[in-house]
Amino acid sequence: MVRADYRLRSVAADDERLEAYARLVVEVGLNLQPGQLLAISARLEHAPLARAVARAAYAAQARYVDVLYADPQVQRALIEHAADGDLGYSPPWLVSRFRSLGAEHGALLKITGDAEPEAFAGLDGGRVGRARMHAVDEASLALTDGVSNWTIAGYPNEGWARTIFGEPDVERLWEAVATCVRLDEPDPAAAWAAHIATLEQRAATLDERRFDRLRYRGPGTDLTVGLHPETHWLTALDTSAGIRHIANLPTEEVFTTPDARRTEGTVRSTLPLYVQGTAVHDLVLRFEAGRVVQIGASAGEDVIRAHIGTDDGAGRLGEVALVDRHSRVGTTGLTFHETLFDENASSHLAIGISSLEGVVGAAALSPEERHARGINHSSIHTDFMIGSPELEVDAVTASGETVPLLRRGDWQL
Amino acid sequence: MVRADYRLRSVAADDERLEAYARLVVEVGLNLQPGQLLAISARLEHAPLARAVARAAYAAQARYVDVLYADPQVQRALIEHAADGDLGYSPPWLVSRFRSLGAEHGALLKITGDAEPEAFAGLDGGRVGRARMHAVDEASLALTDGVSNWTIAGYPNEGWARTIFGEPDVERLWEAVATCVRLDEPDPAAAWAAHIATLEQRAATLDERRFDRLRYRGPGTDLTVGLHPETHWLTALDTSAGIRHIANLPTEEVFTTPDARRTEGTVRSTLPLYVQGTAVHDLVLRFEAGRVVQIGASAGEDVIRAHIGTDDGAGRLGEVALVDRHSRVGTTGLTFHETLFDENASSHLAIGISSLEGVVGAAALSPEERHARGINHSSIHTDFMIGSPELEVDAVTASGETVPLLRRGDWQL
Repeated sequence: MVRADYRLRSVAADDERLEAYARLVVEVGLNLQPGQLLAISARLEHAPLARAVARAAYAAQARYVDVLYADPQVQRALIEHAADGDLGYSPPWLVSRFRSLGAEHGALLKITGDAEPEAFAGLDGGRVGRARMHAVDEASLALTDGVSNWTIAGYPNEGWARTIFGEPDVERLWEAVATCVRLDEPDPAAAWAAHIATLEQRAATLDERRFDRLRYRGPGTDLTVGLHPETHWLTALDTSAGIRHIANLPTEEVFTTPDARRTEGTVRSTLPLYVQGTAVHDLVLRFEAGRVVQIGASAGEDVIRAHIGTDDGAGRLGEVALVDRHSRVGTTGLTFHETLFDENASSHLAIGISSLEGVVGAAALSPEERHARGINHSSIHTDFMIGSPELEVDAVTASGETVPLLRRGDWQL
Repeated sequence: MVRADYRLRSVAADDERLEAYARLVVEVGLNLQPGQLLAISARLEHAPLARAVARAAYAAQARYVDVLYADPQVQRALIEHAADGDLGYSPPWLVSRFRSLGAEHGALLKITGDAEPEAFAGLDGGRVGRARMHAVDEASLALTDGVSNWTIAGYPNEGWARTIFGEPDVERLWEAVATCVRLDEPDPAAAWAAHIATLEQRAATLDERRFDRLRYRGPGTDLTVGLHPETHWLTALDTSAGIRHIANLPTEEVFTTPDARRTEGTVRSTLPLYVQGTAVHDLVLRFEAGRVVQIGASAGEDVIRAHIGTDDGAGRLGEVALVDRHSRVGTTGLTFHETLFDENASSHLAIGISSLEGVVGAAALSPEERHARGINHSSIHTDFMIGSPELEVDAVTASGETVPLLRRGDWQL
């Protein structure tokens, strides 16, 4: 019945939903301040949300809204034809864009919901992996560590719906996204405040216990991840340049920074991962002394191999995150084939750069100093999902006490 | 019959036509050289051509192709809501983009064919006129004077077709555009070489006569435009950093640089003009001593008034161009509501910056030195159409001899 009602929505109601979503992004996700610059990274198919966010941002007294529409088909032409030495070219004006934003403490929005998650299918995987703008990515990632208020949000579109449902049922996807981001609540902002308070409480409980390491066991997974001794557990509620913002819409995780020297064992990813326009299926990584030493995948192996070869930190963990099965995203029962959503239905890990906010004092350290202290640095940050009902997650204290955290997807602490 | 044939074109044939057009843009319009950067300015609805050009450019060994998709709906939100002082904000990274391209002698392509020529309808005309990125526009225009090989080409899309035909008949528009750009020829590149040679011959003939001024008479028009004494007549065949390129596809004009101090009288525009997302109808300008002193229009007057108020040079002529009625564009019988096409079916003038190549030595002068010598400088360059069968154009020599140039649209010289 709900679906039928939704299908009869008028254009005006659709507009209203889009405008409400845009306000949520601007007010709750970004907490945009008067006079701020806002840079939006989008794909062409995200134009309706980019435009609605621009309207909401100017209504909130943004100084200027810059929308950069990336086009994977143009990038595909580069990968197919460019000289090998030009694959990693970073246009200086794109570096300048992020540096200018940093200097002015501008806000950042990334819109996801990939209409073409396999845009680079059939291309040489090594070239796909090497076709990354390192300098642009570094300048962009630098903003997400306490410099800019930022968020990521998904926009339902035909291509994304087709990936999930096998048909372009955008309305069904809209319903799912609205559920995940609490747009179905009478007062979404209030619902978000309550939700974030719950996650913050969970992080505080984990923090009090000062665990030394996490232990994961499940089909294909037997992994120990050392936590950094100066670590804190965090939520997506972040404070950047004094502005509290929620960096992911949706978010259901608590996460922290591992010691990049202390991951041991094997982990199997439980959901497909999309890296640089390529689907990676059945990823298996084996770690020794913090570092990936073996990589397997039933599809996309050459791309993930090149991706992990990007730099030293790309083969070490930068994040461990725990999600229980009762999350809003999990209750939809969907695999979204989109990290922003799937990582909030499933415990996950990330290779690449650490969130500096997870470690006291880390923001003041150079990349080399961080590396020496086991705080990972890289030009990538790529999450992959490892959660399942079969996955058992324990925390272990320095004295060897084992405390169950997740059983059958239920939170134990 | 031809139309019927076209309508039955297969997808493969459409792709072939698009790829042939992209090659024409890269090889004939830009004459792109191996190792060059290429910056493309496009709208979202131009994506298929932008992508095809990117493929053709990489096939021609481009180093990197940057597509910047502008979104008038985001710009509209700025105009509606931004603080007055922020309307003219020039993002430094966009200035940096054109400066980087200049430093590296990159190539530039602008794709036109506006799906929303009246995107800013209903907004405050003064704010529309003031919402221009002067620093970005200046950096961009600086590249078109001998620094970069550049061209402009149109992409048939539904919105543009609707503006012309009242219905989204894209196939009919494709036929017209293909005719205008000689894609209907068995060897388009050879057809272009022959066509440009004809125009170059016409320019040489005008040059030999060393005319002092042009005289225009027609309904609502009685205008004298002084030519610059050091002027040359030009075609869109241009040489930038040693690379010969054709700056407009299509092009049918010969043009030169007027003396910005010597325009006198009144001129009436014969086609609608689209400025900053606004249609300007029945534009009438009166000049005294080179400068616009009176502005009239039946629609869009506030926008054209603010546009002409942009800077000192925006109210003086920067170009005079002659087109006869036998041009490829003219033979389609269409009003394209798009300057690139309409200006090549009609004699026209432009307010704003002069082409420096029209005046010997001008490129070495500062804007102030140019101004002192009657070579116009501005951050705008806006063409408007004045041609019609009724318009009589004469050239006058320094000694007062009058030579007819156009009668009933036919070339006389």
